[in-house]
This record gives sequence, C-alpha cells and structure tokens, in this order.
Amino acid sequence: MNETIRIIGIDPGLRRTGWGIVEATGNRLGFVAAGTVRSDGAADLAARLCQIHDGLGTVLDRHAPDEAAVEATFVNKDAAATLKLGQARGIAMLVPARAGLPVAEYAPNAVKKAVIGVGHGDKGQIAMMVRTLLPKAVFDTEDAADALAIAICHSHHRGAAALQRRLAGV
Amino acid sequence: MNETIRIIGIDPGLRRTGWGIVEATGNRLGFVAAGTVRSDGAADLAARLCQIHDGLGTVLDRHAPDEAAVEATFVNKDAAATLKLGQARGIAMLVPARAGLPVAEYAPNAVKKAVIGVGHGDKGQIAMMVRTLLPKAVFDTEDAADALAIAICHSHHRGAAALQRRLAGV
Repeated sequence: MNETIRIIGIDPGLRRTGWGIVEATGNRLGFVAAGTVRSDGAADLAARLCQIHDGLGTVLDRHAPDEAAVEATFVNKDAAATLKLGQARGIAMLVPARAGLPVAEYAPNAVKKAVIGVGHGDKGQIAMMVRTLLPKAVFDTEDAADALAIAICHSHHRGAAALQRRLAGV
Repeated sequence: MNETIRIIGIDPGLRRTGWGIVEATGNRLGFVAAGTVRSDGAADLAARLCQIHDGLGTVLDRHAPDEAAVEATFVNKDAAATLKLGQARGIAMLVPARAGLPVAEYAPNAVKKAVIGVGHGDKGQIAMMVRTLLPKAVFDTEDAADALAIAICHSHHRGAAALQRRLAGV
C-alpha cells in the first residue's frame, strides 16, 4: 500500500516550461527536483519546440518519474497566445507519453485547491504553499513552483482514488 | 538550378492531420503522395498526440521530404478549439524539425493566394485547384488537399526567393 511513486508536474509555456518532481509514499510527500526548460526567443518556432522536447526528455532520463501531470489551461483573451501555449503543451504531453508514463491533466483551479485549499490565488501564494508542503523544495522560477503544485495536486488525487478503492474493498 | 526538392505540406488538426508531398523541379510541380493521419477520439489527449507523432514520423520515413511547410492558423472564436489545434500543430512542427527538415509557416490567405490566386476561398475551391495544378493527385480528405496546397505555396515562395537571388546575381 505504501509504495513510493515519483510524479513529475509540468507547467508548459513556449518561453519557459516549469517542471517539478515529488515522491509520494502514502500521504507523505518529498521534494526530488525542480527546474525550468527555456526556449530561445530568437530561434524559429520549430527549433523552440525541439528545445522544449529535448529539455523535458533530459529531465525524464535523469529523474525517471513514474507518472506525469500537466496543467490544462488556456489564455482566454488572446487566440495567438493560446495557440502558442497549445504548441508548447502538445510537446509537454507528448514527451512523457512517449516515455510510457500515464499523463493526467488538471484544471488550474484544481491545482490551486490542492495547494492553497481554495480554487483561486496568485502565483505568489502557490509558491509559498509549495514551500510549506515541501520544505526542502528549491525552485528557480514561479513556473517551476507551479509545476511542483501540479505534481502535489496529482499526488492528492491518486491518493484519494486509492483510498476509495480500499474503502470499497477492491 | 533545376534541382528537385521534395516538399511536405502539413495541415494539422487533433482529429485529422492532412499531409501532402510534392516534388518541385524549377517551376514544374509533381504529385508524390498525400494522406491523413487520424487520432482516436476515444483515447486520451496524450495518446492522441503520440498517434499524430508516430503517423507523421512514418510518412517522413517513407517519403523522405527535404523541406516542410505548416499552415499557421488559429480558431479565433473558441479558445478551447485553438488550444487543441495548437497541441496538434506543436507535434506537426516538431516531427519534421527533429528529422532535420527546415519548417516554414504560411498564413491561410498566403496558401489560398498560391493555389486560387486570391487570399480567400473555400475548401472545395482549394481541392479543385489542387487537382488542376497536380492532375495526378490523389487525396482522401480535404485536409490532405489543404496539405498539398500548403506544399504548393511553399514551392512558389522558395522558387520566388531563388529567382530574386538569380536576378540579384547572388
């Protein structure tokens, strides 16, 4: 029952894609690593997508997570920005899926609820709660903090699903 | 000057991604192949992105194009649809870029202008003009016809660029 699962959370973006890895053992959570994959704003789009692909691939090779979780968000006001985000998000989902990891998606308010306790709050609050929940966490950007929050969210959801299965005697 | 260049055009979509390959020798254009990569609407998003990735990878392996062109479009009215398209488009640009092909982008009105002569027109008109420009063309969907139109558009633009270089004595 108390197997240890290593989860990577990914907060995709064309310029900066945050990633954060936690280990969940039962209800206990531990920080593994976090960081930011950057793409070169002066390069063309196809090259930037390759940079995101290769950067996330290196992270998966190095830290070998078991499951992945990606934020399901869109920029409602600007179609061009939403298209850019979608392109980065496609890569962020493809890389773990091709590595054989199950890839879960969480809406931003589910992520906020998991770490702040309510479905709204700014990036500063998320980073503060990530530091509280993972005292050893080190992250270089708010995108990496968001990615850790996504991983924490996934650990709660999969923990709740396991508890339901246990209570149902499955 | 009259080298033969093989061009793949890609019309990305989450459900159907059209592809079409032409060969350009000077001003002459020839049809090579066209088709549609489909993703399973019942599968989860990450699996569908893998299907697009693998399908396009198979096409590149089989037909070995030299250059790629992708339509730069977005769905202005619906952010969720734009995000979906962006995800598919990210994969459609990643696959040829990782295979070492230069990847050009063309706006929809540039593609229409290349095949119809004006910057507007419906999918039926595009398919009709593709049949006129490439009499041997066989395609299974309008997405594949659009992809051929994108490849034709790229052949015109690279031909015009070569002519300019020649006139400038470069």
